[in-house]
Amino acid sequence: MGGSVFSTITINYFLCTTMDKLLFTPGPLTTSMTVKEAMLHDLGSRDTSFINTVKEIREQLLAHGGVSKDTGYETVIMQGSGTFGVEAMISSAVPRDGKLLVLINGAYGERIAKIASIHKIPYEALVCDEDQTPDLQKTEELLASGGFTHMIIVHCETTSGIFNPIDQFGMLAARYGVGYLVDSMSAFGAVPVDIAACHIDFLVSSSNKCIEGVPGFSFVIARRDSLIKCQGQADTLVLDMYAQWVGLENDGQFRFTPPTHALLAFRQALRELDEEGGVAARAARYQDNFNTLAEGMSTLGFREYLGRDRQGYIINSYHYPEAAAFDFKVFYNKLNDRGYIIYPGKLTKANCFRIGNIGRLYTKDVKALLAAISEVKAEMGF
Amino acid sequence: MGGSVFSTITINYFLCTTMDKLLFTPGPLTTSMTVKEAMLHDLGSRDTSFINTVKEIREQLLAHGGVSKDTGYETVIMQGSGTFGVEAMISSAVPRDGKLLVLINGAYGERIAKIASIHKIPYEALVCDEDQTPDLQKTEELLASGGFTHMIIVHCETTSGIFNPIDQFGMLAARYGVGYLVDSMSAFGAVPVDIAACHIDFLVSSSNKCIEGVPGFSFVIARRDSLIKCQGQADTLVLDMYAQWVGLENDGQFRFTPPTHALLAFRQALRELDEEGGVAARAARYQDNFNTLAEGMSTLGFREYLGRDRQGYIINSYHYPEAAAFDFKVFYNKLNDRGYIIYPGKLTKANCFRIGNIGRLYTKDVKALLAAISEVKAEMGF
Repeated sequence: MGGSVFSTITINYFLCTTMDKLLFTPGPLTTSMTVKEAMLHDLGSRDTSFINTVKEIREQLLAHGGVSKDTGYETVIMQGSGTFGVEAMISSAVPRDGKLLVLINGAYGERIAKIASIHKIPYEALVCDEDQTPDLQKTEELLASGGFTHMIIVHCETTSGIFNPIDQFGMLAARYGVGYLVDSMSAFGAVPVDIAACHIDFLVSSSNKCIEGVPGFSFVIARRDSLIKCQGQADTLVLDMYAQWVGLENDGQFRFTPPTHALLAFRQALRELDEEGGVAARAARYQDNFNTLAEGMSTLGFREYLGRDRQGYIINSYHYPEAAAFDFKVFYNKLNDRGYIIYPGKLTKANCFRIGNIGRLYTKDVKALLAAISEVKAEMGF
Repeated sequence: MGGSVFSTITINYFLCTTMDKLLFTPGPLTTSMTVKEAMLHDLGSRDTSFINTVKEIREQLLAHGGVSKDTGYETVIMQGSGTFGVEAMISSAVPRDGKLLVLINGAYGERIAKIASIHKIPYEALVCDEDQTPDLQKTEELLASGGFTHMIIVHCETTSGIFNPIDQFGMLAARYGVGYLVDSMSAFGAVPVDIAACHIDFLVSSSNKCIEGVPGFSFVIARRDSLIKCQGQADTLVLDMYAQWVGLENDGQFRFTPPTHALLAFRQALRELDEEGGVAARAARYQDNFNTLAEGMSTLGFREYLGRDRQGYIINSYHYPEAAAFDFKVFYNKLNDRGYIIYPGKLTKANCFRIGNIGRLYTKDVKALLAAISEVKAEMGF
């Protein structure tokens, strides 16, 4: 038996390395083979070794945000994609007699407003252009006018790739005494953040972003005092962030079946993040990817959507070339045929496509993508 | 590089086969190595090969329920655990001016009532003892009294392992013209069900039960006409079953990041279900496991909780032995130390533990478990 399975695994391994396309997207991402191999185990969800896995994950996540249980912070893991975590966080954290200020400069901010609306949470949106960060002065004026209990912002708006200065908005939240929620979906793990110094009450991210795990769950890092206030505020069973936390605290188990394999992969991903040198080292690798991409794309004549001062290093947006010979679908498919997956745009006012710098990718991979783009450009004649 | 990775995989493989405990639980389950190996790939969630994976899964699920798109049925896949699917189904399917009859004979029926209550769905519960199936005549009287728009029942109540006759309740649902919802979480894939003949409008199950995939999502098989009526009825963003369906139909993609690896595992699991001979063959294997277990446990002096006429073959409940020397925690841990995971009880009126017959388990595994139980029994002296 050993022999036959051995050869099956060998074959699979070669299929993986030779055939999997590289994902230059905002997630799911290209992950390391060792992260995926961690999923070759079936663990009972009530078994001690699984409970210890969850404990390690919850503690490590706090550490990467510069906080700990001792300093008053907690991790809540929520089954489902990142948006499940965002909806759980908002619908649990903001009482229906509160008022939420939603800072919007892209599709994920808009989605937050939609969630608030669905849950009948009173809110006001401060909307700005997708290539601008929300205005600090206007935000302060709104907060000063009173009536707001909470404020929420997206850390890296994946719509464009823009970084919002969550520390500066956090100062405002603290000054005006409102609860501060941060959607750090595509930034946490690769953009250093001091959760306490930024006055963050709740920060949400997911398993398949910069920690480089596989999709299957999201997590909220919460200030315990703020989390306790969420009791009884949720209007669903499964998205009740408070009840989920209480369940995890009681016996280390999930209320409802956890994605055991995705959690095993994530524990491995966290260990590999440490081996790499932590958040700062990962930030440096992604910045190298970003710089290589930006320089190469500029040489190839592509124009960045964002001004360089606002551009994050997670994902870049590029304007469609104006040449008649450019067709995004053809461009995408030709890159896909060569083994490189890029991402369509999501901007409301500009025709753009996106290229991600995150995941188990190195500058050699970015250079290979650039070579493919150059080839396709010549082939399409734009 | 090839060499070193090769040996890593070999080591991992031996860790898997030599160290993974066998899961005699209602899920997550022991799955085949080939199902887990299917997760050794990172696919883009918008990539054609992934879209085709999802398409294959959605079609195959219909086939295992004896229906198809051509006969008017649809599959909606929902991120998260089984309960996410149950809450999505109920909160999307039952309008707030409707009325739901909840048939309850265990914890999962109770959970359904809780979900209805949280979502302010008017409902009435018909509760019966956990070792009994809901009374057909009482159900008919309630339906005849009018006012109900929907009825819901659990197929296999995992609390005890009892099988509820979903076909007979389906006849009543059809006679009285109410929408019929079935929670077939721990039965679908191993208990033959003809969704059309049972007059089922919505049936929910999950990835980590009898199809033998890994946890990460649930799915609803729905009559298209009934699904269309769900538009605008959900009170959340992520658990909106109708919007999820529309998203999948539009471009084959998920609205929010899907658990790509769990879906790859599930496609492989569905293929292995076919290779085994489909639902009937899987039912036969689980029945063999059940019979082996029942006979062995009886020989060892354990008493079944359910009468044999109501006992399903998915999971068995056993009374705690009355001997003073029996302590469940010790019993559980000693089996765990030997590599066998059983399940605690969840009954309200009886002290029981549970043993599952499902997952990639064969009679040889059940016999090995029985041998371990015999050893532990002798060691504990009960």
